Amino acid sequence: MFDKYFEEYQIGDTWRSRGRTITESDLVMFAAWSGDWYPLHTDQEWAKNTQFGQRIAHGLLILSASMGLTHLEPGRVVAFYGIDHLRFVRPTYIGDTIHVEMEVASKQDKGEAGIVASHATVLNQDGNPVLVATHKLLIAKRPAT
Amino acid sequence: MFDKYFEEYQIGDTWRSRGRTITESDLVMFAAWSGDWYPLHTDQEWAKNTQFGQRIAHGLLILSASMGLTHLEPGRVVAFYGIDHLRFVRPTYIGDTIHVEMEVASKQDKGEAGIVASHATVLNQDGNPVLVATHKLLIAKRPAT
Amino acid sequence: MFDKYFEEYQIGDTWRSRGRTITESDLVMFAAWSGDWYPLHTDQEWAKNTQFGQRIAHGLLILSASMGLTHLEPGRVVAFYGIDHLRFVRPTYIGDTIHVEMEVASKQDKGEAGIVASHATVLNQDGNPVLVATHKLLIAKRPAT
Amino acid sequence: MFDKYFEEYQIGDTWRSRGRTITESDLVMFAAWSGDWYPLHTDQEWAKNTQFGQRIAHGLLILSASMGLTHLEPGRVVAFYGIDHLRFVRPTYIGDTIHVEMEVASKQDKGEAGIVASHATVLNQDGNPVLVATHKLLIAKRPAT
Amino acid sequence: MFDKYFEEYQIGDTWRSRGRTITESDLVMFAAWSGDWYPLHTDQEWAKNTQFGQRIAHGLLILSASMGLTHLEPGRVVAFYGIDHLRFVRPTYIGDTIHVEMEVASKQDKGEAGIVASHATVLNQDGNPVLVATHKLLIAKRPAT
Amino acid sequence: MFDKYFEEYQIGDTWRSRGRTITESDLVMFAAWSGDWYPLHTDQEWAKNTQFGQRIAHGLLILSASMGLTHLEPGRVVAFYGIDHLRFVRPTYIGDTIHVEMEVASKQDKGEAGIVASHATVLNQDGNPVLVATHKLLIAKRPAT
Repeated sequence: MFDKYFEEYQIGDTWRSRGRTITESDLVMFAAWSGDWYPLHTDQEWAKNTQFGQRIAHGLLILSASMGLTHLEPGRVVAFYGIDHLRFVRPTYIGDTIHVEMEVASKQDKGEAGIVASHATVLNQDGNPVLVATHKLLIAKRPAT
Repeated sequence: MFDKYFEEYQIGDTWRSRGRTITESDLVMFAAWSGDWYPLHTDQEWAKNTQFGQRIAHGLLILSASMGLTHLEPGRVVAFYGIDHLRFVRPTYIGDTIHVEMEVASKQDKGEAGIVASHATVLNQDGNPVLVATHKLLIAKRPAT
Repeated sequence: MFDKYFEEYQIGDTWRSRGRTITESDLVMFAAWSGDWYPLHTDQEWAKNTQFGQRIAHGLLILSASMGLTHLEPGRVVAFYGIDHLRFVRPTYIGDTIHVEMEVASKQDKGEAGIVASHATVLNQDGNPVLVATHKLLIAKRPAT
Repeated sequence: MFDKYFEEYQIGDTWRSRGRTITESDLVMFAAWSGDWYPLHTDQEWAKNTQFGQRIAHGLLILSASMGLTHLEPGRVVAFYGIDHLRFVRPTYIGDTIHVEMEVASKQDKGEAGIVASHATVLNQDGNPVLVATHKLLIAKRPAT
Repeated sequence: MFDKYFEEYQIGDTWRSRGRTITESDLVMFAAWSGDWYPLHTDQEWAKNTQFGQRIAHGLLILSASMGLTHLEPGRVVAFYGIDHLRFVRPTYIGDTIHVEMEVASKQDKGEAGIVASHATVLNQDGNPVLVATHKLLIAKRPAT
Repeated sequence: MFDKYFEEYQIGDTWRSRGRTITESDLVMFAAWSGDWYPLHTDQEWAKNTQFGQRIAHGLLILSASMGLTHLEPGRVVAFYGIDHLRFVRPTYIGDTIHVEMEVASKQDKGEAGIVASHATVLNQDGNPVLVATHKLLIAKRPAT
């Protein structure tokens, strides 16, 4: 969880989130809200004729849900700086349950704050990765006493 | 728009999406659905005391909405391969209207299909970029006749 | 309200629904759920340059909300048969409050049940009609004792 | 698709939309948003005892979703003028996948713009019509050069 | 239904609501909107290892839905005064259909209006109670003529 | 926060949640989802003529949102046992920001687990209480080593 000051992160620190089951309702709501109705996510008949044989979740649905599983403590996390090398490595099917594992990969001092880069992996209930990315968060430094 | 076969993309091709006004309702729905209730997005009193002076949209809200503004033609777009170098460069306030501009940056032949990398820029109503990223899509090759 | 048996409706019967304020949130949710992102409903900058000067509600949003304001009693209403001559006669702006007025226009005996046709008018808070239509409902006959 | 000027439509022109699977989530969201909780759509136990044996989608849900499947090009489509002779001809069950087919039926010159009337048919995955209607759109004329 | 003046309620009066099927979509939307993602409601894998063996609905989801099944007539119901002794007595599973039964338990004159206390029981399709509570509503007195 | 074993709670323990701004979108979504369209929450014209002069949030909206602001740690919280003496003491207007304060009031040993009763107060941005209740949670005992 991102609940520490910049100085307190150690490269190699890891944590693991709770899980969330990805439902048909999530696919419908994400398609609707985002406006991305690509038929692999929203048309069961079309999806039957693909290599997956069924509808799969949007990649950005998994990314967005994974950030919701990640606690960003106000006063510690200053801003979401960016994402590098995001890859959608496996499909997530309706009914799969995902969680996130993070590992601190590098730190970069930026003066008043610093950037903590973490390798994020979203895994399904079988322990297989479905999404990998490097998240960069701007983290506050510990205030002087 | 991504409605062409791999062979048909030219580096430097550009297009521009329609616009979408980002509303308070979008912030509430994205916070709720994703589970990311960071107070800069959901607590007006807290946000008043930040450099922004008000709530701002989640970065991933802008990313997700921008993909919904991007047409992915079935039969042409095979898969969303990944994203590189995503940066949240300006805040989006409630009531701002965003659109997306894309420019084809590189192509990579992968045998049966190919990867088209595009520089995506999300801009607000003042023409200022709020998000930049490189989207990589796996695109079908033109079928032999 | 449609809470009577076919025999009990009189041509000229009228009723009036409660009101509902149409919010920006309703426009966003209807655009999202239906998939109709026409910019007059969803792009404030685009709407500024129209004759309306602002976003207006989808016509089918008003139609759908008006049916939700109309009580259809189970056991009396058998089916929604159809709609004739639906016209969108005035815009509904964000913040307007609509209600429905209905008047029974004709009855048609269909054997075990009958069709009741009603002139429906959706009005805004100024008493001006925004939508008119003729709704046809299949209504049960009173059971023999 | 409605992406042409009035002069360019020919009576008999046809097109076909992508598909959308109608889910339980759609029924719940439409019932909630519209306020129409008629038990045939929202109470599984009640629906078991009807001729359908299960819940079916609201007719206006199908109508609204079908308009979301229909592209209305800004600058071409000026306004949704109205609907004639809408009939709900078959039930749509949870899990059915619908698409829309349209055929231009008539054109009416109105001076600066014109009305294009189209026969719309919503069909399920078995190719059976579930809704028919005549949609009337006000379409811009081609600007003089 | 709460559609009468204070003087008209009799202790022992009862009524019964229509039903509503509680769907997976309801669990997802309530978890999202409320922000309560406790895994018994949202993580199928976690729920498998509990005494219930599956996800169950939030208690407050059932409470909120039960009030939506209860008609509160404007002009009669002045305010929702409070709730006493609310107990969640059985789980509600995805696909269960609930309804509400109410019985007037006591009346308390408060001058211009009065409080009507009712025993509310939410029951599932097997007739088993899942929630009990005492609802207290402030009810208007009949206006003098 | 409820993240401790039964033995670890002390009567008088207090904590305070983060805040959440209650938006017009929340009122619309809660009215829709719950089915409670009482006009004080959903009809701006009607609400203008009440003592509040505007729409106010549903009491159960505030209750539900307040539980979402309350962390229930899996493995510690076993079940939501019930609520006593819930009172809606002030209106919450659109744009108000609420948070929750809790104080442990009593503990009751139930063998394998115990009930912790807490006085919950929901306060607005002016520090005024809008809802008070006593929440009873079934809490696990510390496992023997």
